[in-house]
Amino acid sequence: MTTDLRVGVVGAGLMGADHIARITNRISGAVVSAVVEPDAGRAAAAAQNAPGSQAFSRIEDALAADAVDAVLIATPGKFHEPVLVPALEAGLPILCEKPLTPDSASSWQILQLEQRLDRPHIQVGFMRRFDAQYSALRQLIASGDEGELLMLRCAHRNPSVPESYTQEMLITDSVVHEFDVVPWLAGSPVKTVEVKYPRRNSLSPEHLREPILVIMELENGVLVDVEMNVSVQFGYQVATEAVFEQGIARIGQPAGLQQWHDGRFSIGEHVSFTTRFADAYDAQIQRWVNAVRAGTLVDGPNAWDGYLVALSCEAGVRALQGGVQSVDAAARPAFYA
Amino acid sequence: MTTDLRVGVVGAGLMGADHIARITNRISGAVVSAVVEPDAGRAAAAAQNAPGSQAFSRIEDALAADAVDAVLIATPGKFHEPVLVPALEAGLPILCEKPLTPDSASSWQILQLEQRLDRPHIQVGFMRRFDAQYSALRQLIASGDEGELLMLRCAHRNPSVPESYTQEMLITDSVVHEFDVVPWLAGSPVKTVEVKYPRRNSLSPEHLREPILVIMELENGVLVDVEMNVSVQFGYQVATEAVFEQGIARIGQPAGLQQWHDGRFSIGEHVSFTTRFADAYDAQIQRWVNAVRAGTLVDGPNAWDGYLVALSCEAGVRALQGGVQSVDAAARPAFYA
Amino acid sequence: MTTDLRVGVVGAGLMGADHIARITNRISGAVVSAVVEPDAGRAAAAAQNAPGSQAFSRIEDALAADAVDAVLIATPGKFHEPVLVPALEAGLPILCEKPLTPDSASSWQILQLEQRLDRPHIQVGFMRRFDAQYSALRQLIASGDEGELLMLRCAHRNPSVPESYTQEMLITDSVVHEFDVVPWLAGSPVKTVEVKYPRRNSLSPEHLREPILVIMELENGVLVDVEMNVSVQFGYQVATEAVFEQGIARIGQPAGLQQWHDGRFSIGEHVSFTTRFADAYDAQIQRWVNAVRAGTLVDGPNAWDGYLVALSCEAGVRALQGGVQSVDAAARPAFYA
Amino acid sequence: MTTDLRVGVVGAGLMGADHIARITNRISGAVVSAVVEPDAGRAAAAAQNAPGSQAFSRIEDALAADAVDAVLIATPGKFHEPVLVPALEAGLPILCEKPLTPDSASSWQILQLEQRLDRPHIQVGFMRRFDAQYSALRQLIASGDEGELLMLRCAHRNPSVPESYTQEMLITDSVVHEFDVVPWLAGSPVKTVEVKYPRRNSLSPEHLREPILVIMELENGVLVDVEMNVSVQFGYQVATEAVFEQGIARIGQPAGLQQWHDGRFSIGEHVSFTTRFADAYDAQIQRWVNAVRAGTLVDGPNAWDGYLVALSCEAGVRALQGGVQSVDAAARPAFYA
Repeated sequence: MTTDLRVGVVGAGLMGADHIARITNRISGAVVSAVVEPDAGRAAAAAQNAPGSQAFSRIEDALAADAVDAVLIATPGKFHEPVLVPALEAGLPILCEKPLTPDSASSWQILQLEQRLDRPHIQVGFMRRFDAQYSALRQLIASGDEGELLMLRCAHRNPSVPESYTQEMLITDSVVHEFDVVPWLAGSPVKTVEVKYPRRNSLSPEHLREPILVIMELENGVLVDVEMNVSVQFGYQVATEAVFEQGIARIGQPAGLQQWHDGRFSIGEHVSFTTRFADAYDAQIQRWVNAVRAGTLVDGPNAWDGYLVALSCEAGVRALQGGVQSVDAAARPAFYA
Repeated sequence: MTTDLRVGVVGAGLMGADHIARITNRISGAVVSAVVEPDAGRAAAAAQNAPGSQAFSRIEDALAADAVDAVLIATPGKFHEPVLVPALEAGLPILCEKPLTPDSASSWQILQLEQRLDRPHIQVGFMRRFDAQYSALRQLIASGDEGELLMLRCAHRNPSVPESYTQEMLITDSVVHEFDVVPWLAGSPVKTVEVKYPRRNSLSPEHLREPILVIMELENGVLVDVEMNVSVQFGYQVATEAVFEQGIARIGQPAGLQQWHDGRFSIGEHVSFTTRFADAYDAQIQRWVNAVRAGTLVDGPNAWDGYLVALSCEAGVRALQGGVQSVDAAARPAFYA
Repeated sequence: MTTDLRVGVVGAGLMGADHIARITNRISGAVVSAVVEPDAGRAAAAAQNAPGSQAFSRIEDALAADAVDAVLIATPGKFHEPVLVPALEAGLPILCEKPLTPDSASSWQILQLEQRLDRPHIQVGFMRRFDAQYSALRQLIASGDEGELLMLRCAHRNPSVPESYTQEMLITDSVVHEFDVVPWLAGSPVKTVEVKYPRRNSLSPEHLREPILVIMELENGVLVDVEMNVSVQFGYQVATEAVFEQGIARIGQPAGLQQWHDGRFSIGEHVSFTTRFADAYDAQIQRWVNAVRAGTLVDGPNAWDGYLVALSCEAGVRALQGGVQSVDAAARPAFYA
Repeated sequence: MTTDLRVGVVGAGLMGADHIARITNRISGAVVSAVVEPDAGRAAAAAQNAPGSQAFSRIEDALAADAVDAVLIATPGKFHEPVLVPALEAGLPILCEKPLTPDSASSWQILQLEQRLDRPHIQVGFMRRFDAQYSALRQLIASGDEGELLMLRCAHRNPSVPESYTQEMLITDSVVHEFDVVPWLAGSPVKTVEVKYPRRNSLSPEHLREPILVIMELENGVLVDVEMNVSVQFGYQVATEAVFEQGIARIGQPAGLQQWHDGRFSIGEHVSFTTRFADAYDAQIQRWVNAVRAGTLVDGPNAWDGYLVALSCEAGVRALQGGVQSVDAAARPAFYA
């Protein structure tokens, strides 16, 4: 393909607007040809960042107008299915923001539908896989240079969350990232999930009981503990310590400007995921565009990964109530091998 | 007291010999006046580092000879009680290497005996409390500057252990340190202990199943996870990440010589506890000597702390078999208030 | 401009090939429409990364064919002038790899030619200005938050150089970067240059006497010392310590994967400028493309900066022979204000 | 010697009081037996930290009373000679705070006097040689593991100085430390000294023009640049980057408590030399006491080193006025080989 890929972006909220600006300003080989957004104000604002794009209020109209070569879904998770279905039926490649769908049953339905095509068309937007540090850690694990991987000790820290953030979202909106990236790192799916409650942060919204410590066991025996923290005030940090047989590796450490001031030496830390994963978001979209233009369609987590994550989230939500919860996946179809 | 404190060191093995050299060469206000060691070879070797000291094969003989003002017990834990009893009966101040005794029942007996004296005479050798970094962390916690403490995430890593190291020793010889220092940091005793098993390190002695992840809940709700690792090859590291309401603090990071060489920047790390805690061992003995000379006798963990640690170890050993194990302490006597 | 910018890349050597791949694969809003390269082999190799591009052996032919909207010059410095002249005469925007030209006299001629146009058309490829860390440091200096800047202490370290690298190239090929970026950071041009010789590195090519310490005084009194080191073996590092009235800032520290292994903690360091400045090269081209499409043409160092750097290099080359050498620039034309 | 070394401390100002407390509380094998201090108030205050010590107003009286086995001189440099002379004549071992004497001529006289004894009796209090990091760096240099040493890049940063601090003291009170430790590290004496002036720190006392950059060439060709900064506000830092043929080493980096707070990750830095070099001061005195008790008398920089430093300081003071100033030492007597 020598002409630019025409991407239809569905949803022009925060995430959608960000993707529109990204494709327009920083991604090679693609243009935003359509913005699908029922809210007129959002649609108009988004159009300014996508010169030459057409506006639609429904995905079906964009498809009917033959306005797009590929679809990027950036609506909230509960609105994914009604876009995934017609896009799949139209045989278009899709990049779907996480989660694939809000539960494993509906994800399973999407898997069924996708398998009618010749090969996977859906990529799910777990951007951590495109972060340079996660990649380097995965490469180290795969190399065996430090012996086998034994444990992963993770921290996922946010400064604060809005009142609308619910207890379940600790799992479905936040730990969801670890549910994808940890099996990808360790080369093994999640087997069980458990939740422990530390002392509650009094600065959290009143209805939240957090931080939590999420403990996962993987099929290959690797043990993972994730400190999930959404009100830690200081800033944003996603860090992992990998415990090997012969050593330790660590990612997610501060790397900003270094300063000596007022009795302390300091290094700039992130305060939002937008800067922490800025390069990962760019790389994710660029590699997806390249894959679509090259005809391989997917270069990253696919719908099967999305289904597994949905199962892990369901186990995680049950684990919020106590107990060691199992993740029981169906057998992986050869289609996703 | 203007003359030097005459310390009788009981046990001239590795630890005892180390303390003898320390007192002789680096501690102000004390001399090793007696070495109590039945093994003639060890006794002779030790005497070289303690010019002017007398040799005894039994503590009772040293006491009878009025050769010591204070006793430092550096034998293995199972031999502590037969030294503690006569030393207490003689009314002498005692620094007893950890553990106080091998189990809570015998520790309780020691507590009873000690309470016949006018005040605590026993200090237990948990040297981490004398480490500058642990002290700084404790001060930060106490200050409230970062809000309340919520979690402690600990790593206790050794390069390797001899074949004689048993599974129980993961708790009684290694995690024993966290059982003392964690309540001291957090200002709250251990309530429950649980053990999780990651993938086994194939480089461990065959009879060991480790590393383990030890999870403690403290009375005040603080949650603690300790990665206990005794075959991690690379070196020795004892590190803690403290999760507060408003931020994070961390100790135990590498601080040796910094070098750029062969594609990497590196910082020298410890390979043994002897260098990691060298200053802490010195400070522990110096402060104990100062306290004894000043008549306060104890400046650090006392026999009550030793009893609590024995209880935690018993819970930890049970937890090796599974389950969440409670630590049920008797009420603290006013004597130890 | 809604259509892609058609860039003609002149020179398909290492640097040119790199830019061709960059524009084709990672830059938004631009395509390589022409490759100008007399060497047929190079031209053919380059064409594979620029689908749809035309091949020319001379810039004049590309201009005559109306094949380009803008010119990127990636030939060695001595070949810049014969491309700059016709491209300027054609009124095209130009990104010219450093140096502008090999000496200040020829640079001055280019300035005269460019001033016949309505405004600056030439940007010079000093990519450090597009590095996130340099930008953050510049912002800190400009903010005054640490008081006035007093000194810059720089290190510019390469693992090795080929036999063809000459003593003068220490200045003209290496320190040339500091001659641009230091005045940009400090907001003041170079006033004098001096060179000191440390002990010689025996691993350098025999005809080189290096490392050298280059000392610059800026017009505003800021003093700068640059360790210029081209055989330091371990890897590639470009670091700066900025000394302010109230504190210190530092950039260029290692930020790769962190590992504990074999008695040391290490952080991955760069071994080549290609990774150290990968993002800066991308940002430089993307911002230039954006500026050209927006009609502002230049977003970075311009030809006047290139002329000043040429003067500093000449002073630096004289300083290799000894003495404190002055940089005497002509008055800046209003055209470059 | 099995009894404690009786040390007479001369001068009970800040430094003297510190040494008195050190010997009394932390040094093994020594007691402060005499305090020589004409100021009655100071003498009384000091005596509280030296139980059992005698007070004298003149060194001669302490010597006549046979009250001391060794002398520690902690008065300002201009008062050293009148103590050194009688102490040497009495054949006592001496630890003399830096500088040996205020100038090379008087230092030379001391050398003559000392050579009447059987061997060196004077150690000069350059405590940096007893810092663990400096020692590790020296060991690395001596090992040759990184190839030859080529450059040392030093920073010597103080938060502020009193009004009484003079321009010359930049050299004689501050860089004096580098004049001792740099030749000790590099294994070669100072050959020339030069001073460069960066922009002046407006927060310095009005009569000071600083920071300064001091450039030294050593006899073996190693080049050294020292940023001497006495008003940098943020805290206290003494750091060195050693440039080798194959890599870089660095000491003096922050190693305090690590914290994430308010958008930054920070590490506690020193704010005074008293904490930065606390361990070095202790080690210096302990090793001196051990050497004296063992009969070797000196374990550290001797009077010859003190003479060389005096010469370097004189060159440095001349260099404050400009030019490259030579350090011309007499031939080293065999006595100091």
